[in-house]
Amino acid sequence: MKNIEAYFQDFTKGLEPSNLYEPMRYILTQGGKRLRPHLVLSTTQALDGNIIVAEYVAEAFEMLHNFTLIHDDIMDDAPIRRGMPTVYKKWNSNIAILSGDALATMALRRLLVTPCPETIRLKLIDIFTETSLLVCEGQQYDLDNETDDTCDLAAYLLCIEKKTAALLVGCLRSAAILSEREDCEHALSVFGTNLGIAFQLKDDYLDLYSENIKFGKTKGGDILANKKTFLYFSALKHACKEDNNALIHYFSISDMNPDEKIKAVKEIFDRCNVQKDVEKWIDIYISKAYDALRDTNLPEEKLSDLFQLLEQLKVRTV
Amino acid sequence: MKNIEAYFQDFTKGLEPSNLYEPMRYILTQGGKRLRPHLVLSTTQALDGNIIVAEYVAEAFEMLHNFTLIHDDIMDDAPIRRGMPTVYKKWNSNIAILSGDALATMALRRLLVTPCPETIRLKLIDIFTETSLLVCEGQQYDLDNETDDTCDLAAYLLCIEKKTAALLVGCLRSAAILSEREDCEHALSVFGTNLGIAFQLKDDYLDLYSENIKFGKTKGGDILANKKTFLYFSALKHACKEDNNALIHYFSISDMNPDEKIKAVKEIFDRCNVQKDVEKWIDIYISKAYDALRDTNLPEEKLSDLFQLLEQLKVRTV
Repeated sequence: MKNIEAYFQDFTKGLEPSNLYEPMRYILTQGGKRLRPHLVLSTTQALDGNIIVAEYVAEAFEMLHNFTLIHDDIMDDAPIRRGMPTVYKKWNSNIAILSGDALATMALRRLLVTPCPETIRLKLIDIFTETSLLVCEGQQYDLDNETDDTCDLAAYLLCIEKKTAALLVGCLRSAAILSEREDCEHALSVFGTNLGIAFQLKDDYLDLYSENIKFGKTKGGDILANKKTFLYFSALKHACKEDNNALIHYFSISDMNPDEKIKAVKEIFDRCNVQKDVEKWIDIYISKAYDALRDTNLPEEKLSDLFQLLEQLKVRTV
Repeated sequence: MKNIEAYFQDFTKGLEPSNLYEPMRYILTQGGKRLRPHLVLSTTQALDGNIIVAEYVAEAFEMLHNFTLIHDDIMDDAPIRRGMPTVYKKWNSNIAILSGDALATMALRRLLVTPCPETIRLKLIDIFTETSLLVCEGQQYDLDNETDDTCDLAAYLLCIEKKTAALLVGCLRSAAILSEREDCEHALSVFGTNLGIAFQLKDDYLDLYSENIKFGKTKGGDILANKKTFLYFSALKHACKEDNNALIHYFSISDMNPDEKIKAVKEIFDRCNVQKDVEKWIDIYISKAYDALRDTNLPEEKLSDLFQLLEQLKVRTV
């Protein structure tokens, strides 16, 4: 990971105009979990692939991820990310649109110089652009769902499969391709889909049920932002008619006292056993992810990093 | 061109979510000059290249061009394009950001299925992404110039070279590559740069000096929008101190009576001989473009389409 961090420190050096390139460097040197590079590198290692090649691919996917964050933050009107002002807040939304566009292009150009045979490079670009399109579709479903009264749990899961899981799947498939281990591509995709969904459900869970709250986040922030997550759809599914109506009402208003709103919604969630339901589903997706990893038929010791990722997800508290 | 139009009619058929894909179809079936596809096809024909391959490339570049229009219209707050509401006006700016992002990706995926050898396909993707980055840089310079008092004619020309000419250069270089005529790539690039700049200067010229005004445009619209074009920088260069100050003032206010403002600015332009100056420079760039075409050393009859394009640009009145 050290090489990747070093690359992000320098990749815009000397490039002009600075209002285009500086925002990219800003967001890419803020840290973050680096989950996507980690997936590319660990999987390539597990498959005895070339780590130098994997670093290029890891950088490209982390750039793609951060491009989506720059644009998503404009759409979601989000002022803070990782405890820092978002790009559109620090500069403005025109600069955020444009530097996002340019970052997506830089990501692709990183793949273009990946030191591997041409056939593999083209296959990587194919996966990469397919991924990028799925993420756009996921984000559009997310925007559509905000105002769609017919949106339910199934629609929500389709949305996060595209918006969150697809990018992880892209990282894993790319690692399989660059390691010339197409035989593992399908099982790794299934792993990625389930990991991604479990990951998002854990995020949804921790927003309300975390013991310690992440820096810069508000407990119940999703409720206050009327963000319909797994918790909301799980409740809707199990609620009596009265709670159902109340929930729909609470998630349509924004002038209620914050503490009272969180309390009222949480009471409905409790009556609907939402906490147990989301815990159950996180376990189900994590267990599916385990199964998929075993389906690669790789020796357990090769997969230790990826198994560990699932263990960490289980016990994650922030 | 018929195949290309047919492709745009159908390329989003059956794709979901429709809020992501419908805006792409909307903008790509509005017509427009199709200058970029025309350049790819005519140049490929001149170089005896494969027209089927050229159609894929032409489609990709037209999609790239329209992606930049979708995002530019958000940034410029432009309500109308080609006599129709812009994407962000017809839908909203979130949808415009996202469908623009997705269109850029679809454009690249069109190149990925271009029926040509892998080495050429990778070279086309290289040119395409380089072009895309140059256009972003040009648009950022354009945004920067709006508020930069030190911006002058040279800075303006650099900006339009990237924002407008680079895309034409990308089309021409791609035609050379797909036709396996690298020997013509440089001369065609020079042709594209000069054609692009001449094209933009003609646009700047016609905004104020056109006899008949284009549908949906206002005569002097650039002046009313405080858009600093070649006319403004040419005037600044030749104006006396008093006119200079007046010009800077006029281009910083937006509450003046439209007719009076255009009249006042035009009087300064007239004193500075702006009309003659821009006519002179259009001729210079067109003549450089002619020279570059001759430098390809292709027989004149092969180049007739491209020569004709320059003739049309000379006499263009709207």
